[in-house]
Amino acid sequence: MANKHRVVIIGGGFGGLGAALRLKHAPVDVTLVDRCNYHLFQPLLYQVATGTLSPANIASPLRTILKSHKNTRVILGEAIRIDPANRQVILSDGAILYDTLVIATGSSHQYFGHGEWERFAPGLKTVEDATDMRRRILLAFEAAEREQDSEQLKALMTFVIVGGGPTGVELAGALGEIAHDTLRQDFRNIDPSKARIILIEGTDRVLPAYPSGLSAAARKMLERLSVTVRTGAMVTDVQNASVTVREGDRSETIPTRTILWAAGVLASPLGRVLSEETGATLDKAGRVIVEPDLTVPDHPEIFVIGDLASFSHQTGKPLPGVAQPAIQQGKYVAGTIERRLRGEKTRPFHYLDKGNLATIGRAAAVADLNWLRLSGLPAWLIWIFIHLFYIIEFQNRLLVLVQWAWLYLTYDRSARLITGKNPLPLDL
Amino acid sequence: MANKHRVVIIGGGFGGLGAALRLKHAPVDVTLVDRCNYHLFQPLLYQVATGTLSPANIASPLRTILKSHKNTRVILGEAIRIDPANRQVILSDGAILYDTLVIATGSSHQYFGHGEWERFAPGLKTVEDATDMRRRILLAFEAAEREQDSEQLKALMTFVIVGGGPTGVELAGALGEIAHDTLRQDFRNIDPSKARIILIEGTDRVLPAYPSGLSAAARKMLERLSVTVRTGAMVTDVQNASVTVREGDRSETIPTRTILWAAGVLASPLGRVLSEETGATLDKAGRVIVEPDLTVPDHPEIFVIGDLASFSHQTGKPLPGVAQPAIQQGKYVAGTIERRLRGEKTRPFHYLDKGNLATIGRAAAVADLNWLRLSGLPAWLIWIFIHLFYIIEFQNRLLVLVQWAWLYLTYDRSARLITGKNPLPLDL
Repeated sequence: MANKHRVVIIGGGFGGLGAALRLKHAPVDVTLVDRCNYHLFQPLLYQVATGTLSPANIASPLRTILKSHKNTRVILGEAIRIDPANRQVILSDGAILYDTLVIATGSSHQYFGHGEWERFAPGLKTVEDATDMRRRILLAFEAAEREQDSEQLKALMTFVIVGGGPTGVELAGALGEIAHDTLRQDFRNIDPSKARIILIEGTDRVLPAYPSGLSAAARKMLERLSVTVRTGAMVTDVQNASVTVREGDRSETIPTRTILWAAGVLASPLGRVLSEETGATLDKAGRVIVEPDLTVPDHPEIFVIGDLASFSHQTGKPLPGVAQPAIQQGKYVAGTIERRLRGEKTRPFHYLDKGNLATIGRAAAVADLNWLRLSGLPAWLIWIFIHLFYIIEFQNRLLVLVQWAWLYLTYDRSARLITGKNPLPLDL
Repeated sequence: MANKHRVVIIGGGFGGLGAALRLKHAPVDVTLVDRCNYHLFQPLLYQVATGTLSPANIASPLRTILKSHKNTRVILGEAIRIDPANRQVILSDGAILYDTLVIATGSSHQYFGHGEWERFAPGLKTVEDATDMRRRILLAFEAAEREQDSEQLKALMTFVIVGGGPTGVELAGALGEIAHDTLRQDFRNIDPSKARIILIEGTDRVLPAYPSGLSAAARKMLERLSVTVRTGAMVTDVQNASVTVREGDRSETIPTRTILWAAGVLASPLGRVLSEETGATLDKAGRVIVEPDLTVPDHPEIFVIGDLASFSHQTGKPLPGVAQPAIQQGKYVAGTIERRLRGEKTRPFHYLDKGNLATIGRAAAVADLNWLRLSGLPAWLIWIFIHLFYIIEFQNRLLVLVQWAWLYLTYDRSARLITGKNPLPLDL
């Protein structure tokens, strides 16, 4: 083993894991480093946040996935610095030498310079984020059931989702269903279907990356679930119990106890670290601007992929921060490493856009497959099929299917647990 | 509703929920108060702690269970005081009036006067306890994989379980399987099957409440999983990285980074509160000594059931703190309330002991059905059948079955997630 080419991959998301999986039979030593001991299927994280699925259903231990990869070791650790001169990754508790480095540490949410909003308006990137969001949503209904004051009650029954991209739309749709169907008979003093669910989007339509016909269809489906969609609306302030929104010249402060953040993506801080060490340029979102072969300028031994990479060689604008580009980039990098070792010529990365899918609720989704645009039931069936297909472990596929079927038949979301630090008394 | 007899039940465990379920058609107003929004199926909590099941699989929202009970409301709240003179329960944020009160707040673990041990040796009573235990177990293996020092490595690979009752035996058995089967191919530097798993029991045999033949069978099954069983051993000290055990005259300090506490049960603090308010007597474990009809002396309107009750009228010693007595007491109390309202004569509580079951691992369990004692595969099949039967929601029954079948076929425990506060660097 000692003389083999050492590939270090930082991050076990779609990009990093994709690369590791493809290197199974390559004549290299692979080290995969992640802060978590599992690969998270992020596209379904909103279903954990809304009580449909359990975290373990969408999180697979990296060691399980890679157990048959005899050339691969997994390390639970956090990369804090890169040392390109000595070709090593500095962890919070050690260092790892590399010959080729693949950085795939993804992104987190950002608050447009208002980090203080995060406390009141949590985002959705990790399992802990999802269980925290679930806790806030359920506690708001619990507190409403016991609230006497009508102003307070109104704030507790108001849910504001900031950001009309796929995550915001999916959260709003699921909340609409929870309020109307799942919780319908659960309370005695409040009527959950009276909950106000407000989706705020800065541009002029939801799902702005989709064709406008599908945006309109998504909006209609959201409104059918009683979600109030406010486009062209900017959030100008977030407080403990309110959010302020500006639409054109008008500004309004909405009293609410639950604000969910689904806007603004910020690349992983490792991008800045890398930029300082190698002189690589970052784009406005903090992503590393990469070469056509996904390497860092002047560092052919360092690849950056997934949400952390800004790759605009193909269409003139960066690829979106979703699973497909990350997966394809992971595979591409693994192939490029193998070609190099064989002394073969490498090709630039080419992204094959397979389309976009977002679900709004029961039998309600939009699908843009490039050659075909669908909404409603057919889009929803495609969404289900594709997501089940991409979930990694067979057992999880089965568990997710059982829970989706149950939800479809009964409207019940059984993973509605309030967990975490003691929430009592209910001063949210 | 206003003039109906008000029944307040504190605690949504087996006892409290049992009473609430039975009161569905009674001419009363029922209020169920719990700190959690779910009923927890505690007998399977060790399977969450060992990565087999997800919390939601064994936790059902109380509102879902009781949604069709039109006479019942559920309140998320914590009872901190009882005011028998004014017949009200004082919550941390309010008060509820009752005509009949049912106290079913259960128990937690105790450390025999050494509360400082809890930090190092967590117990297993709540969902949060279980995910914390899971985190500690998995982090110990992760840290071992990266440990260079052989002494430290040995401590990381040593797991001590204190208490040889059902929970301790089940935890030890599951840990044995994790080390030998589940994690077998997961690591590159350590061999998980070399882990030392030590079960410490103060009496002369494990499962002391069982017939001695079954204790011997359980011990044999544990040893087959390479668990070291040390009976007649008392824990005299617990530190961050060691546990000290005395056997007869000999005392030994075992270096270990994972200590799991499955010994010592302490009744809920509401017992002491009640004793102060009503003069009720507590037994040594802090349980309320109840009358033959489970009421508090001189307070026929206050029932105490489940783990918090000390009922020894039938056999001369208190009933064990397990699910069966609690369920039966809950039903009994509901029936007694109805009889009283109808002006009928009430009978004393009578416990029907259906037997005991504990599982050690794959096809390994012991069953004492009073008329029949079994061990091994037949006991295990009975254990599976009975547990699936008692799990409340149909969906959860299905999900648990899928996961058990998967475990049986593949030895894989897929809920092996390290969640919670950031565990890095790995200074356990």
